[in-house]
Amino acid sequence: MATLADIGLSAAINIITAFIFLIAFAILRLQPFNDRVYFPKWYLKGLRSSPATSGAFVSKFINLDYRSYMKFLNWMPDALKMPEPELIDHAGLDSAVYLRIYLLGLKIFIPILVLTWAILVPVNWTNDTLDKLKGEATYSEIDKLSISNIPQGSHRFWTHVIMAYAVTFWTCFALKKEYETVANMRLHFLQSEKRRPDQFTVLVKNVPPDADESVSEAVEHFFLVNHPDNYLTHQVVLNANKLAKLVEEKKSKQNWLDYYQNKFERNQAKRPIMKTGFLGLWGEKVDAIQHHISEIERLSNEIAEEKEDVVNNPKAIMPAAFVSFKTRWGAAVCAQTQQARNPTLWLTEWAPEPRDVYWKNLAIPYVSLTIRKLLMAVAFFFLTFFFIIPIAFVQSLANIEGIEKAAPFLKPLIEVKTIKSFIQGFLPGIALKIFLILLPTILMIMSKFEGFLSISLLERRSASRYYLFNFVNVFLGSVIAGTVLEQLNTFLDQSVNKIPETIGVAIPMKATFFITYIMVDGWSGTAGEILRLKPLIIYHLKNFFLVKTEKDREEAMDPGSIGFNTGEPQIQLYFLIGLIYAVVTPLLTPFILVFFALAYVVYRHQIINVYNQEYESSAAFWPDVHGRVVSALVISQLLLMGLLSTKEAASSTPFLLALPILTIGFHMYCKGRFEPAFVRYPLQEAMMKDTLERAREPNLNLKGYLQNAYVPPIFKEADSDSDSNSDSDDETNDQKWQKDNVLVPTKRQSRKNTPVPSKRSAGSSPNLPEIREKDKP
Amino acid sequence: MATLADIGLSAAINIITAFIFLIAFAILRLQPFNDRVYFPKWYLKGLRSSPATSGAFVSKFINLDYRSYMKFLNWMPDALKMPEPELIDHAGLDSAVYLRIYLLGLKIFIPILVLTWAILVPVNWTNDTLDKLKGEATYSEIDKLSISNIPQGSHRFWTHVIMAYAVTFWTCFALKKEYETVANMRLHFLQSEKRRPDQFTVLVKNVPPDADESVSEAVEHFFLVNHPDNYLTHQVVLNANKLAKLVEEKKSKQNWLDYYQNKFERNQAKRPIMKTGFLGLWGEKVDAIQHHISEIERLSNEIAEEKEDVVNNPKAIMPAAFVSFKTRWGAAVCAQTQQARNPTLWLTEWAPEPRDVYWKNLAIPYVSLTIRKLLMAVAFFFLTFFFIIPIAFVQSLANIEGIEKAAPFLKPLIEVKTIKSFIQGFLPGIALKIFLILLPTILMIMSKFEGFLSISLLERRSASRYYLFNFVNVFLGSVIAGTVLEQLNTFLDQSVNKIPETIGVAIPMKATFFITYIMVDGWSGTAGEILRLKPLIIYHLKNFFLVKTEKDREEAMDPGSIGFNTGEPQIQLYFLIGLIYAVVTPLLTPFILVFFALAYVVYRHQIINVYNQEYESSAAFWPDVHGRVVSALVISQLLLMGLLSTKEAASSTPFLLALPILTIGFHMYCKGRFEPAFVRYPLQEAMMKDTLERAREPNLNLKGYLQNAYVPPIFKEADSDSDSNSDSDDETNDQKWQKDNVLVPTKRQSRKNTPVPSKRSAGSSPNLPEIREKDKP
Repeated sequence: MATLADIGLSAAINIITAFIFLIAFAILRLQPFNDRVYFPKWYLKGLRSSPATSGAFVSKFINLDYRSYMKFLNWMPDALKMPEPELIDHAGLDSAVYLRIYLLGLKIFIPILVLTWAILVPVNWTNDTLDKLKGEATYSEIDKLSISNIPQGSHRFWTHVIMAYAVTFWTCFALKKEYETVANMRLHFLQSEKRRPDQFTVLVKNVPPDADESVSEAVEHFFLVNHPDNYLTHQVVLNANKLAKLVEEKKSKQNWLDYYQNKFERNQAKRPIMKTGFLGLWGEKVDAIQHHISEIERLSNEIAEEKEDVVNNPKAIMPAAFVSFKTRWGAAVCAQTQQARNPTLWLTEWAPEPRDVYWKNLAIPYVSLTIRKLLMAVAFFFLTFFFIIPIAFVQSLANIEGIEKAAPFLKPLIEVKTIKSFIQGFLPGIALKIFLILLPTILMIMSKFEGFLSISLLERRSASRYYLFNFVNVFLGSVIAGTVLEQLNTFLDQSVNKIPETIGVAIPMKATFFITYIMVDGWSGTAGEILRLKPLIIYHLKNFFLVKTEKDREEAMDPGSIGFNTGEPQIQLYFLIGLIYAVVTPLLTPFILVFFALAYVVYRHQIINVYNQEYESSAAFWPDVHGRVVSALVISQLLLMGLLSTKEAASSTPFLLALPILTIGFHMYCKGRFEPAFVRYPLQEAMMKDTLERAREPNLNLKGYLQNAYVPPIFKEADSDSDSNSDSDDETNDQKWQKDNVLVPTKRQSRKNTPVPSKRSAGSSPNLPEIREKDKP
Repeated sequence: MATLADIGLSAAINIITAFIFLIAFAILRLQPFNDRVYFPKWYLKGLRSSPATSGAFVSKFINLDYRSYMKFLNWMPDALKMPEPELIDHAGLDSAVYLRIYLLGLKIFIPILVLTWAILVPVNWTNDTLDKLKGEATYSEIDKLSISNIPQGSHRFWTHVIMAYAVTFWTCFALKKEYETVANMRLHFLQSEKRRPDQFTVLVKNVPPDADESVSEAVEHFFLVNHPDNYLTHQVVLNANKLAKLVEEKKSKQNWLDYYQNKFERNQAKRPIMKTGFLGLWGEKVDAIQHHISEIERLSNEIAEEKEDVVNNPKAIMPAAFVSFKTRWGAAVCAQTQQARNPTLWLTEWAPEPRDVYWKNLAIPYVSLTIRKLLMAVAFFFLTFFFIIPIAFVQSLANIEGIEKAAPFLKPLIEVKTIKSFIQGFLPGIALKIFLILLPTILMIMSKFEGFLSISLLERRSASRYYLFNFVNVFLGSVIAGTVLEQLNTFLDQSVNKIPETIGVAIPMKATFFITYIMVDGWSGTAGEILRLKPLIIYHLKNFFLVKTEKDREEAMDPGSIGFNTGEPQIQLYFLIGLIYAVVTPLLTPFILVFFALAYVVYRHQIINVYNQEYESSAAFWPDVHGRVVSALVISQLLLMGLLSTKEAASSTPFLLALPILTIGFHMYCKGRFEPAFVRYPLQEAMMKDTLERAREPNLNLKGYLQNAYVPPIFKEADSDSDSNSDSDDETNDQKWQKDNVLVPTKRQSRKNTPVPSKRSAGSSPNLPEIREKDKP
């Protein structure tokens, strides 16, 4: 077991690493040529433009002002300065509420820290159980602070029982407060929100096929009959997946064309040549620029054809539609009620924001959805418990002998001793590492396959699966040594009430491991996040090879987003560890607290300056967050029970029994009390907004506003492409769309211009941004 | 283990018992003085009147026509004759669908019987495993037909695996078919139903208190604002619990008065005397008739006062209301949507039928509901697993020595040998028996405490708990010998995947026990049900002591109802046993089938002639029924897996793994596909009925129709009592109510007159009923 000195060393290493990251960040972010990597949010909002327009040539790329380097941690107070209402305005409610998860961590663990250090540390310390064992077992000072130092059957365990109650009550109190606050924030946000198409629109799925009517007619008739006073208009969903593929392909060819053109410009002597075969490895040699230009032309034509086909071909019309209503009240009614006698037809739900729609899944029929759900549940079970099998298989293939057999010519190289040992040390881990890096993507693909209709739902689903995976493979996997398969076997072979005991007993011994884990993953990892190494490299590569115009440069920016599906499960793991060790090893709590504080500052900075949220779900994810913290609390209680039951503390352990029951009751209460605010839209609210709007804008042309709100983005893209590249044909959607847009501007939708520019946090950037006036209304 | 001869004997005994019951029934039902016990339904429908009006004096009481005794099983075909649509019309959809549960049993188990006897019996029989064991273990012919006769590790287990698949697929197919049929029946029933107040009405709970407005004003304002086009009227809920108690008391006094008056009439010489103290055991002696008359007068006055108080006292107004809408569409919308921003206020749900409302629970606040739910969950857990503890305690008190100590004067009596042995044999069991008899009532009280608002929901909740209790204490308790506490310990101490094994291994050995159980509980019990021994005795007692007028006689009838909360769990236990043994011991299936067939006929007869359903939930219970059969299926699969895993059939067992997964998938599919038809009311449906009604009756006075539909029945009772006994005061609700009733007759509500009298099943009664024409429209 690690001693205090070991932990000190590890802490020092991680603190230094984190500092190196932070200093690197401080330097890199000051360089003007990195500006678009570290402040893309401001560019997207149109509040900052490339620094290329003014100053000397060198200062375009490198910041020579030494004073700005002095205050390299200045971004921290800057990140904290922006008040929450402004943050909501700047980055949306999702981001603001996401930050509150870190704050919640601070709120929960600071009082716990104070309490446990004031009470439990002295209680644990003033025993000599471990001193007596000196000869028999190794132990360290850390263990003297933990529950392990209390003698078997001691009455001191009552302290831990009482502390478990205190921790539970405090956590529940903080959770309830937070749920209340977030629910109010959500309601307030929805209340104060501008008119948005999704407020009036309902997504209708499983429109029954009808021999006499087209889908569009069927939808119109059905809603005219069943919502006669409220129905306004509708938009059928078109299957544009093929179109999307073509547009994608064209974009890639365009990139290659840009690349070759840039290359040619730099070295005019030699026209770039390429091979037409697979990956450019073989095939006929052709002039690259010529080839790509003709390819792009071909694709443009195909896109135009396909677009016409999609619009006119009845087979491309999916049995789904976005139905818009005259009032928010009408939409709220339709979204919350059952429409048809057959409950699998005419399914209605709130339409997601247009940005949030996951278009590909709109046409999955009902039966298929059930099967997909089931399949994914089974697949996830196997993924969680048996993922190690294929990886072990790959590892067994990818050993030195295997490589030598497959590629004998590499033999002399491999046989070099240093390389050999490197491969031997590196190879076994690489398959696992690759898998873990790919895991969020795999989980996302699973969610997509399951058929969710909005990106926000996809992310939430992936997040809950990622959390489960982490719980089993990171938490349980670390506590109970051995492969995951062995663990599964252990659990299946063990009696139900022995499981908490088995894990509970192992808990105190793993404290140092988790302390190290927190420092590596939580401290250094968070500090690394702010560096944005991957986007930095990719941006500069793109910038070098592809960028020709300012517009290209804008596209080369990759602001990214919070990444709820990976970030939130990570936080939850810290909640879990923190709650479990709160009573068992109070020494761990400060490490958790440092993580929460650091992550809060870092992510607040990123949200203000970098991330560009793809959608706005108005904090719809909070019930998930709340639920996972509650489950962490219950797990911590069960494990404490398991642990105490081995300590011969027979008189105090039964008193813990009430805790999980109370906690579950608390959860039920919160679920009933607050959750509806996150899934349903109260009629009172809708009615109020309708009345206000009627009073303010009696002559609003709502139909015009809504008519094209739910045109798949691929149409717009396809149109804008064909407009810019070929002066092609049809006076179709796009133009109508733009016309309507002029009539009733949908500002909210593009999020490129927010009426009120941030006042304070602009100060967080070293060179004052030029605000482009043209983007402002 | 029992041999075939044992089972034959047991079967003979039970068949004879059942026949005795049936013959007794056949004789008793032919006696005119029992007519109101065995045909109350027809009396309540007004299609049959007391046979006292014609014929000789003796034939008023005893049927002397010997021919009618010859055909003593005639009621069976009669019971089957009435076609289902007429049955729905006669007894309501609930009853008709309840009978379909028995039919479902026949549909599932007849093909299973054919299949398993054709395939599994020969496969099991043609082994000699048990013959080889002859010396070591006892076995019987029955076991030769069961899975026990297959040698360890035999390839013949493949047959069982395949049969398990066949059973699962067939059961799921039958379940799906049935769900579909019932859903359609429900929709059709709701469609063809006449106008009923609950179609237009929504129950609103948790109206927030307001300092400036009364509850009634608050409700009116809220719904005028938020449902301006649909709101019609509302009715606040009054706390009439005290009034109900007074009315109850008065009724009881009235009964005693009748009793004493009857007594006096028979023996005019002596005026009856009574004591006023506790139970009439001590206290002042008074003239009984005088005393009761004055008591009734006092209560009548109190009732009148209390009624006035309830109507005028704002404290008696509960924060709940029945809100009625102009259209069914409006009500459907309000019932399915969230009204207020705070999701715990203004909770709306469909109003139950006026008959179905459980008035006492209307005022339970939200927080209290969560706590009650949690408390009852914990209480039920302890009831299920630890009920044996208090009973054992009572038993330990109620032994011979205890009685002798408490009542020494009984000593000489008890010491008589036969009495002593009787007490010793009887006492230990009696506490348990009493508990088991009281159990449904206890479960019902628990459900009431939990705060459900309608009788139908109370019964469904109690049913699911009763099923769980039966599963643990009857099924598991029989399979795993030992007390329930020991079982719980066994399960907790065992590993998770060992539990199905432990139970599965015990399954084949318990086949004979369950066969006997089915015969005693299922055959004789069902035959006993038709005798109606308890109502028979009570009716004759009441008839002798209390009845003076024809109206009294009508009230003395106790038709009873199906008793969903006890009947359905019993059927489900048979489904469970049947599915578990289908593959393991095919010999059991015919016994199950006989139960289903007998019960179907018996309950069909009872529903046609006896039961008077208290409410009509339109088969809302079917999802519960379906869910429990599916869970029985999954349990049977798990147990088979457990059993096979001990048979060294390693190659075939894993193939069973897919079964529970598929079954759960099937359940999810059915849940999504059919369940909404049972919990929500489609707008399409509502709109259609509204449109039809508008066309048919454009000048309907809906407001008048709905205004007093949800007056608590206790008000009507209190009124009618005060009307008949004292010519009292107020021109209140009741009279208004009756006036409205005249304007718009609500036939459905009283169920005393159905437009079309049954054509065929009237023949099931020996003396032709006189149809009272005045009751027909």
